[in-house]
Amino acid sequence: MEQTAKSARQASIKAASLSGEMKNAALAEVAKALEAASDKIFRANEQDLENSRKAGLAGALLKRLKFDRGKLDGVIDGIESLIKLEDPVGQQMDAVKLDEGLVLRRVRCPIGVLGIVFESRPDALVQISTLALKSGNAVLLKGGSEAANTNRVLADTIYNASLAAGMPVGWMALLETRDDVKAMLAMDKYIDLVIPRGSNEFVQYIMNNTKIPVMGHADGICHVYIDEGADIDKAVRVAFDSKCQYPAVCNAMETLLVHSSIAETVLLRLAEEYEEANVELRGDERVREVINCKPATEQDWATEYNDMILSIAMVDSLGEAIEHINKYGSGHTDCIVTENEGCAKEFMALVDSSSVFWNCSTRFADGFRYGLGAEVGISTGKIHSRGPVGLEGLTIYKWLMAGNGHAVADFGPEGKKYLHEKI
Amino acid sequence: MEQTAKSARQASIKAASLSGEMKNAALAEVAKALEAASDKIFRANEQDLENSRKAGLAGALLKRLKFDRGKLDGVIDGIESLIKLEDPVGQQMDAVKLDEGLVLRRVRCPIGVLGIVFESRPDALVQISTLALKSGNAVLLKGGSEAANTNRVLADTIYNASLAAGMPVGWMALLETRDDVKAMLAMDKYIDLVIPRGSNEFVQYIMNNTKIPVMGHADGICHVYIDEGADIDKAVRVAFDSKCQYPAVCNAMETLLVHSSIAETVLLRLAEEYEEANVELRGDERVREVINCKPATEQDWATEYNDMILSIAMVDSLGEAIEHINKYGSGHTDCIVTENEGCAKEFMALVDSSSVFWNCSTRFADGFRYGLGAEVGISTGKIHSRGPVGLEGLTIYKWLMAGNGHAVADFGPEGKKYLHEKI
Repeated sequence: MEQTAKSARQASIKAASLSGEMKNAALAEVAKALEAASDKIFRANEQDLENSRKAGLAGALLKRLKFDRGKLDGVIDGIESLIKLEDPVGQQMDAVKLDEGLVLRRVRCPIGVLGIVFESRPDALVQISTLALKSGNAVLLKGGSEAANTNRVLADTIYNASLAAGMPVGWMALLETRDDVKAMLAMDKYIDLVIPRGSNEFVQYIMNNTKIPVMGHADGICHVYIDEGADIDKAVRVAFDSKCQYPAVCNAMETLLVHSSIAETVLLRLAEEYEEANVELRGDERVREVINCKPATEQDWATEYNDMILSIAMVDSLGEAIEHINKYGSGHTDCIVTENEGCAKEFMALVDSSSVFWNCSTRFADGFRYGLGAEVGISTGKIHSRGPVGLEGLTIYKWLMAGNGHAVADFGPEGKKYLHEKI
Repeated sequence: MEQTAKSARQASIKAASLSGEMKNAALAEVAKALEAASDKIFRANEQDLENSRKAGLAGALLKRLKFDRGKLDGVIDGIESLIKLEDPVGQQMDAVKLDEGLVLRRVRCPIGVLGIVFESRPDALVQISTLALKSGNAVLLKGGSEAANTNRVLADTIYNASLAAGMPVGWMALLETRDDVKAMLAMDKYIDLVIPRGSNEFVQYIMNNTKIPVMGHADGICHVYIDEGADIDKAVRVAFDSKCQYPAVCNAMETLLVHSSIAETVLLRLAEEYEEANVELRGDERVREVINCKPATEQDWATEYNDMILSIAMVDSLGEAIEHINKYGSGHTDCIVTENEGCAKEFMALVDSSSVFWNCSTRFADGFRYGLGAEVGISTGKIHSRGPVGLEGLTIYKWLMAGNGHAVADFGPEGKKYLHEKI
């Protein structure tokens, strides 16, 4: 494992200096190679599916594990979109003239070596490795063990095609065991960033067991707050879509907050719609005076159901809603529904979450929908990247300065002054 | 301590929404209050100096500890410069139209709560707290214990003046004991970023003892590489300034690399200049065939002397120089001296450091010289901020989206398409 990480570190230096054209050519080769290897990939996936069926894996998980013609077309489309995205590496962020002949520039560059641990979907392997390639990073990958055969074929195909197209040896490696992951978490000398994707417990485990910076999210406890000044039709649309459009994901709403002055009207309409969609409602005392539902406990406000369950609380003010969200929320995505612009602005300023919405569904919080192209995940941390993380989130910058033999000793109260002219 | 951190968290929400005008007004009040409290500050500092003299503190440390009229004028000047800097908070980074009436914006915001532990200079307390104020962050501060009396008066003066000018209660707090720091490192629930300044061992201790992200640098092992194509005069100027202009700091050169084809000419000239400046030279075998100096061991290549000592190695190629730097360097600042643009570009692309220079002294790596105004420190990490960290480095962003009742369910293969128009 140490050798793998060390090779990735060495490869990362070379990967950082590759041109956008070369990386795009490598991505095109990867897409071709995946198409050419389709039979081999599907056979490996059949094996994984059979093993998992024997092991009694649930239907929803089997569906995620399945990698068929449609999934392959999807990832190849994804690679083609990725090729079209602008290369963030080498972009100049600032330039300033410090003195005659002394120019400082800040230029985007890759982070270096990423360690990414992801769930059972094999398409994630293709998305993550191609994002790493385009952003000039080296990457160590560990997928779900149920997908071991599929992942091995996919990783080999991508790695060999990219090598033939000029990517440096060792830029990508597939880890196969949990012990590898444990070893990786200790390699802070070689790895710059760990991105875990998966359950809350898993992400917490990673965060507690490494000195390497970790980017990602543990919880997705998203709120919709229906303000006193809400348009009822919009409120119903947004609250319904946020819960029901796809409840198993991190950007689905888990708690609905309703202003008391509007609660009766809106809750009666929503309860009807939620009932039709089979959503289990859990309300606080005042909510239960309006609609018939189970009681919500303190525990409910801090729970990510990822399911057709919704907790509902009544509040008496915008401030109370903001306080509830900052206390129980996970910093993922929270929305206010209101026609009152002042209230919307206050909500957007004071809610301390990575995405804060006004009159639209929390389900929009996603890298593809934001226009970032592909995404490696969603970050609820407040360092480096926040919210959906795409190519730019996998880069940092370096400061480059060019002079003509300039020495600091010549500057000072008695000497030259810094110009600091933006150029 | 938990209460202090919790209050800081609550204050940070309010601080994040303050206007630039209000924060500048608070900074002006702080400057006034420091001037008004000057006698009290100097008396407290006299007490600290006396205690430290009795405890046998070295002269250089006493000089750092001293806070007199000149230092006070310096920090007040610093506050006035800070007022003139643009407020990073609220700046729009991107805006994109996703659909008619659905607009996504990315806007800079403060990180939240900073925990900053700094060395004995009391002026650092003023610089750090005012940077935190301007960037809208709450801050917990711990200074050197030798400066306890001075720091207490400075912190009280700044806090009270800022409160009177409308800053939220609890936005700033001074920690007084090492136990407080230990407790702070466990408050990952309330604190977003820890910035340690001080010795290598101290920074390592902080990094090893917290789950909170840490920004800063442990080592500053900077290199100058004199290439085959160097102009000898420039090489001598840059190498001399990088070592001698102020050797006690992190951006001073610790190791000089010289291409073998030019070594004799340049080493003979440099040895003479270094000898006059009393620099102790340590060379590898080939260097010692050219100039008379002590032998350098493997340990020397990995040592930050912070002193008038320099290790020198001879290399046979640009690639060897880059490899040496990426192996032994600390990712702080490294420089190539050459007239060959191709070699300079290769060096700047492949050296994996936060600042990479061409024909200018490593001593330029500094927030003030870069034109960032004040700086909170220099980061050698590759996440969030790299190199000198000023106001922008203390911010992150949030995604704000405004719609008109938009639901995700209306988009898709059969429905609406995302526009993704940059605006």
